[in-house]
Amino acid sequence: MHFMKKYYLVAPGPTPVPYDVLLEGAKEVLHHRTPQFINLMEETMEGTKYLFQTSGQVYAFVSSGTGAMEAAVENLLSPGDRVIVVVAGKFGERWLDILKAFGMKPITLELEWGEAVSPEQIKDALEKNPDVKAVFTTHSETSTGTVIDLEGIAKVVKEAGTVLVTDAVSSLLAEPLKMDEWGVDVVVSGSQKGVMLPPGLGFIAVGSEKAWKLIEESKSPKYYFDLKAYRGKYPENPYTPAVNMVYMLKKSVEMIKEETIEKVWERHAFLGEATRRAVKSLGLELLSKRPGNVVTAVKLPPSIDGNKLTKIMRDKYGVTIAGGQAHLKGKIIRIAHLGYLSPFDTLAVFSSLELALKELGYKFELGASLKTLQEYFSENT
Amino acid sequence: MHFMKKYYLVAPGPTPVPYDVLLEGAKEVLHHRTPQFINLMEETMEGTKYLFQTSGQVYAFVSSGTGAMEAAVENLLSPGDRVIVVVAGKFGERWLDILKAFGMKPITLELEWGEAVSPEQIKDALEKNPDVKAVFTTHSETSTGTVIDLEGIAKVVKEAGTVLVTDAVSSLLAEPLKMDEWGVDVVVSGSQKGVMLPPGLGFIAVGSEKAWKLIEESKSPKYYFDLKAYRGKYPENPYTPAVNMVYMLKKSVEMIKEETIEKVWERHAFLGEATRRAVKSLGLELLSKRPGNVVTAVKLPPSIDGNKLTKIMRDKYGVTIAGGQAHLKGKIIRIAHLGYLSPFDTLAVFSSLELALKELGYKFELGASLKTLQEYFSENT
Repeated sequence: MHFMKKYYLVAPGPTPVPYDVLLEGAKEVLHHRTPQFINLMEETMEGTKYLFQTSGQVYAFVSSGTGAMEAAVENLLSPGDRVIVVVAGKFGERWLDILKAFGMKPITLELEWGEAVSPEQIKDALEKNPDVKAVFTTHSETSTGTVIDLEGIAKVVKEAGTVLVTDAVSSLLAEPLKMDEWGVDVVVSGSQKGVMLPPGLGFIAVGSEKAWKLIEESKSPKYYFDLKAYRGKYPENPYTPAVNMVYMLKKSVEMIKEETIEKVWERHAFLGEATRRAVKSLGLELLSKRPGNVVTAVKLPPSIDGNKLTKIMRDKYGVTIAGGQAHLKGKIIRIAHLGYLSPFDTLAVFSSLELALKELGYKFELGASLKTLQEYFSENT
Repeated sequence: MHFMKKYYLVAPGPTPVPYDVLLEGAKEVLHHRTPQFINLMEETMEGTKYLFQTSGQVYAFVSSGTGAMEAAVENLLSPGDRVIVVVAGKFGERWLDILKAFGMKPITLELEWGEAVSPEQIKDALEKNPDVKAVFTTHSETSTGTVIDLEGIAKVVKEAGTVLVTDAVSSLLAEPLKMDEWGVDVVVSGSQKGVMLPPGLGFIAVGSEKAWKLIEESKSPKYYFDLKAYRGKYPENPYTPAVNMVYMLKKSVEMIKEETIEKVWERHAFLGEATRRAVKSLGLELLSKRPGNVVTAVKLPPSIDGNKLTKIMRDKYGVTIAGGQAHLKGKIIRIAHLGYLSPFDTLAVFSSLELALKELGYKFELGASLKTLQEYFSENT
């Protein structure tokens, strides 16, 4: 049978964008220095604080999430600064690469891919290195589907009087993150995940005076991402902002506020749990020791080639999930729970996954995962 | 009479975006690592070379034009490098600020705002400073409406064996720029001017082996804008590209190719000349000693407050032009000729300008500029 090629985007970013948000982006471009746009920008950026649960300042760069990560490094630190960085996957490695590129002296807390750093490990590292300027963490390690105990980590970093920076590029809105309540000093994120926008904006939220003090002292070379210029010009950007992305952000913030952030977290948790159950019903295992609700990483049996599997799902059934990265290439698949997805989208994911697994010769009871999903839905309605 | 508030965006960026281009941006977000998107990206970036008239590599950052300017500095140079930089307005100053922020030793060729640096001046500066790594210029100085003789400058820089970098953020497509033929090594630009897109992409085109050699040798700290990473991943981006901006870019490149770049240059020249004539017919003078066809800067009589003038045009008549920057604030107005504008849009500009000038007490013959425009149109049809 020829399947209608409906596009299911279930990868950990970019993620599906609601029609109403996309159409906001097709509106006429306003000049960015007019009161009309500046008011709209102010309302939007003030609203964006809700996504970070902070009363601190949030800035939107025209950049991807990686740009916002670089911004955190070059704004908070000076060459030669010692920092702790947690590396338990590809995005921890990215922190490390950026820190090295800008001449910092990172102390690496390296873990197996799939493990989650604990508050105790951070506490221990801080005790051994009391002179570090900051701790760099990855809230959700997208390469492994692992979410760390950021609340617990924030507590120990605060006790040590150090600044905590976290990459929440994939976790924002998918996992609870309460910047002010937990005391997370700096959070970076991007537009193309839980915020339900196309890629194009990188966010940085600065939640504490301690972080601003580091920013004031920083001697790293910077210009485009210089937060002091952004702070001076707020709510305007010092350079031309992505006007149409701001229209879309305004709309998505409105939608999220109406839904409430607690319900947004809840629906990601629901998709995460449904997916974990469905995975297990097929006799498959999770990669992560501490799986979160951003993306679920699933280990494949050695007989199944992950590249072939994702290709069949994508090209035959229109379902785009992600494969593994680096040494996990071909060995895992990753199913996202991010943004504009309904529980019924999970049915499409597991239907196509089962069909592809069957085609590749994997033995299981056809329909098992769909039955598991249906039972979980029923329990929760 | 109540005017229908139709929005005329006649400022030097952002500029009006055709409906068909905006709607491309409202299309479904494709995952950026799928063959479907990579093919589209390749076709788009290969097509974009036509805009720069180069067979060299063109990269699109998720950034504003300023991000692409920073990229040029940190990719080509190492801290302590001596370079020549031309400063004859706000955007020359931006080059200087970025060069200083990254620890370079710029030799500043400073001119009055409104003057254009000549090939002879560059030649002279190169003879006095034979050790410089590069010459940084502003093709169109948007703050003054001045366009330099880039072809002539490229010739003398080439003879000196030095690398020429030019900011073509506002000039790309509005003024002839033939990278390969003229021998311009590096050109930076942005999406929200002649390319007829919303703000969101910064471009850098690298046209020579000489430039790549500098890039290879550069020791400046960089990560997000690292061209070696972009070159290694081409046509993909190393980080998540602005997928929907790429759809729009593909569309605008198609439209420009169909129109042909020569005709695009011609229509900007036509609007520029029409505007200069209309300005003079009102007894007003141009600021620039070498006015180009990107934006026309007009000196106001001391009795007219430029801030009031642009405000009346914008709030009463819906026509957004630009005022002056820095010491020219309130003293000049700037009318753009960029992108998706028809000659008839110029009628709206001068009708509203005349009405606003009259309201502020300026004496002139009502309708003079419209008559001048109409005569120029008639001569050319």
